[in-house]
Amino acid sequence: MSRWKPDAAGRLSKAALELFVEQGYEATTVAEIAERAGLTKRTFFRHFTDKREVLFAGTGELESRWLAGIAEADPDATPLAAVCGGFDSISEMFAERHAFARVRSSIVEGNPEVKERELIKMHRLTAEIEDALVQRGAPAHAAKLAAQAGVTVFHVAFGRWLQQEDGAALRPLLDDSLNELRSVLAVG
Amino acid sequence: MSRWKPDAAGRLSKAALELFVEQGYEATTVAEIAERAGLTKRTFFRHFTDKREVLFAGTGELESRWLAGIAEADPDATPLAAVCGGFDSISEMFAERHAFARVRSSIVEGNPEVKERELIKMHRLTAEIEDALVQRGAPAHAAKLAAQAGVTVFHVAFGRWLQQEDGAALRPLLDDSLNELRSVLAVG
Repeated sequence: MSRWKPDAAGRLSKAALELFVEQGYEATTVAEIAERAGLTKRTFFRHFTDKREVLFAGTGELESRWLAGIAEADPDATPLAAVCGGFDSISEMFAERHAFARVRSSIVEGNPEVKERELIKMHRLTAEIEDALVQRGAPAHAAKLAAQAGVTVFHVAFGRWLQQEDGAALRPLLDDSLNELRSVLAVG
Repeated sequence: MSRWKPDAAGRLSKAALELFVEQGYEATTVAEIAERAGLTKRTFFRHFTDKREVLFAGTGELESRWLAGIAEADPDATPLAAVCGGFDSISEMFAERHAFARVRSSIVEGNPEVKERELIKMHRLTAEIEDALVQRGAPAHAAKLAAQAGVTVFHVAFGRWLQQEDGAALRPLLDDSLNELRSVLAVG
């Protein structure tokens, strides 16, 4: 399990989140974030296009871990099994980020503009998962449905994880969420 | 089956779509839309807040039909069965709108700003379905998963319907899409 390193980007993220909590997202400037992190605005803009993007630094990693999991899945795995192939790695990624993720989530939910970007990013992630499944040879409709199902499972599990005590693991919640989706869809 | 009436809003929608196709979405102004419909800009703004909103006139009707279907579902119906309760009414709504829906879809897909609003509207619809299920007494997680599953089923079926010949019915594609989601999620 790799510890999340407070490099420049990490320090800026941490500083930004502190300031968003202390004085609100809208009121916080890039200059203040850089100052709090002990870095320059120029360094900030080497890592992020704007203050909103600070909140989405993890999305790229989530995406690359998820796609790597699909790429490494057994060639005979079903589309859904391939989609779930990245769940271990994704859970590891969040292991050290519970407090960060909780604060981030409250900011995202409280700012419609940020929430919109979140929706767009999740939509893109779903499309990339779908593409990865098609490239593995999954039929188009199955790829779309498995990608949507996987993102739904993640979304529900992640929401539940955010509500838990610090130290909770994401992995079992992903399994619970998948099983619950299955029972919701059971005929009857 | 109620025919879609070309009232002022309908005439404006039709005129807008014609112009979007002829000269592009970006290049089209509200004045041109009103003129083509034989109406004034003032009338336009009584019906729509901006030209983008013309493309979302049907979203409100989709939402109200869907929620009505949930409200009318048997009190003992499972969350998923309740979600599917509106499918007949939704399919009827689109029966006369295939050509419109195809053109609309090409505009939405070709304009990122419009596509973003589409994502946000679908997200809100999902949240309203979830709320309606919770009000029926569904457990929170089941409500969320059933709402997401229902919207996924709709989304996939709708995409397939758009690719079909004019006159195709949406209803059987909704059933196919649900069954396919079930097999994608089947253990194995």
